[in-house]
Amino acid sequence: MAALNGAATDMKSTFRRVYSTLKSELLQDPAFDFTDDSRQWVDRMLEYNVPGGKLNRGLSVIDSYKLLQEGRELPEDEIFLACALGWCIEWFQAYFLVLDDIMDNSHTRRGQPCWFRMPEVGIIAVNDGIILRNHISRILRRHFREKPYYVDLLDLFNEVEFQTASGQMIDLITTHEGQKDLSKYTIPVHHRIVQYKTAYYSFYLPVACALLMAGENLDKHIDVKNILIEMGTYFQVQDDYLDCFGDPEVIGKIGTDIEDFKCSWLVVKALELANEEQKKLLHECYGKPDPILVAKVKELYNALNLQGVFAEYESKSYEKLISSIEAHPSKAVQAVLKSFLEKIYKRQK
Amino acid sequence: MAALNGAATDMKSTFRRVYSTLKSELLQDPAFDFTDDSRQWVDRMLEYNVPGGKLNRGLSVIDSYKLLQEGRELPEDEIFLACALGWCIEWFQAYFLVLDDIMDNSHTRRGQPCWFRMPEVGIIAVNDGIILRNHISRILRRHFREKPYYVDLLDLFNEVEFQTASGQMIDLITTHEGQKDLSKYTIPVHHRIVQYKTAYYSFYLPVACALLMAGENLDKHIDVKNILIEMGTYFQVQDDYLDCFGDPEVIGKIGTDIEDFKCSWLVVKALELANEEQKKLLHECYGKPDPILVAKVKELYNALNLQGVFAEYESKSYEKLISSIEAHPSKAVQAVLKSFLEKIYKRQK
Repeated sequence: MAALNGAATDMKSTFRRVYSTLKSELLQDPAFDFTDDSRQWVDRMLEYNVPGGKLNRGLSVIDSYKLLQEGRELPEDEIFLACALGWCIEWFQAYFLVLDDIMDNSHTRRGQPCWFRMPEVGIIAVNDGIILRNHISRILRRHFREKPYYVDLLDLFNEVEFQTASGQMIDLITTHEGQKDLSKYTIPVHHRIVQYKTAYYSFYLPVACALLMAGENLDKHIDVKNILIEMGTYFQVQDDYLDCFGDPEVIGKIGTDIEDFKCSWLVVKALELANEEQKKLLHECYGKPDPILVAKVKELYNALNLQGVFAEYESKSYEKLISSIEAHPSKAVQAVLKSFLEKIYKRQK
Repeated sequence: MAALNGAATDMKSTFRRVYSTLKSELLQDPAFDFTDDSRQWVDRMLEYNVPGGKLNRGLSVIDSYKLLQEGRELPEDEIFLACALGWCIEWFQAYFLVLDDIMDNSHTRRGQPCWFRMPEVGIIAVNDGIILRNHISRILRRHFREKPYYVDLLDLFNEVEFQTASGQMIDLITTHEGQKDLSKYTIPVHHRIVQYKTAYYSFYLPVACALLMAGENLDKHIDVKNILIEMGTYFQVQDDYLDCFGDPEVIGKIGTDIEDFKCSWLVVKALELANEEQKKLLHECYGKPDPILVAKVKELYNALNLQGVFAEYESKSYEKLISSIEAHPSKAVQAVLKSFLEKIYKRQK
């Protein structure tokens, strides 16, 4: 998945300083009697996997919390806590990326070899993933234990983790199980994978963290959750679209979803719109490395006018999201949701 | 690790019924919109990995809780909750076993192929491990959310998970990293691995669950924790001993710790007691599949009288544990601790 664009950059250095604090605390955690080797291992593993992303998810916790506070100048301790929650989401992301890369047998991540590809790491990366997840609990316990919303934070991360892993499960059993079988790729399956595997943790989780810090009860914000899940779904559809139709110069990579037999919105939509002959072509050409076959799939996408279908989907989604957002009773919450939407609407990367 | 012996068997059928209830609830969890395929996958994954062990850890929650209640007849809802916590520990164990088997590249577990060895599973087992962990949070939330000790249960499972994964980390980086290097195998390293990787979840966790259900504050039971960690360490040393000196007919398997280059108490003790020549032999013969070399290691163990050294360790540990237990102010807590100790003292399997 590509990143949200345009997140505040002035906060970034504060945010990075908080990372160093959190890392030091974890390396001195009294719940475990580190050997020198194991402390060094964790230090290196964190540096390699946690701070190297675009940090948009983490930074959006702070942005959202600020908007919810409607311009009130935030005291230092609140900024620290918002940053700590932001880092919990970055740790969460690192956890899933480390494990997903193993399961997808990937080669590179964020411009460097995947962690499990490091010769001294290998399959130990599975345990490192677990350690990354456990660090979230350690950070929450150290900094939020006395807060009235502590238990809600634990429940939130647990539930979102369950949803993310469940989305990943559908993705894995649909994509990996048995022979490559396009007939499993349908709009409802695609929607479920995207919603659970990406939208909950990338869109709902940051805002939910900010709401909890602001003293809100998440049970009263089901509408906010639904809007963010919709937005996250739209975001992933963009991602699928850009993989094929985006400018490689702009998105920074050459898409390979077709070769990789990905359950992309494009192939799912194509299967929906295709006649029997076109379906046959898709079954024959999709998921093969041969550039001639890839080109045939792209030709078919063009014949089915998927660029137009996407543009239609994009403007419909935007209208629907805006009207849901404007129906929300709180102007502060509206501001949070609009700031997310503006960062992604019609993005080119 | 072998299992605790002699756990109550009359409770076992009740305990098994609770498993079926918990499984049904998880397969209908409203937090995730299952496809038929994914529901079936989880069902099969649970059946394969969760209920097939000896269930001693899980059953010991109920035994401990009963002893803490000093003979009071337990109402059905309390029995259900104690069973649910017991199952959380069995799920916890299944989670770590599924992942450990991948990392250790094991072949069999509980008399069947490891889960990841199933042809349709493979590396998807990593995500299944995560799902198993998430089920614990789902069970706790469904059945304990309104209990005053809910947050303590979450903290407890989180902390024990962190300790178990950290113990596993030391084990992995000591055993797998670089070339086979016996010089890393020392008594303190062995002690740390055993304590964190096994003792916390196998001995402390069941009793801590029972204490929380009984309304106790775990911060006031540091002594109980220390005793149980000691007991868990002693238990694992027995395990290491029986791998080499136990009767294969009785323990149900032929030990291969020497061939597998395991950081066993025996090799660590041998390295401590050996002269230079004997050390050289160990470095040459340990961790190789050749039966002649394995026999040489065993000969050395005999020359160093490790059976006698173990018998000495065993009776010292027992005395120390008994006197720590008898120093405890509560007779009920003493009964819990003694029941654990009696199950393991001088065990042959």
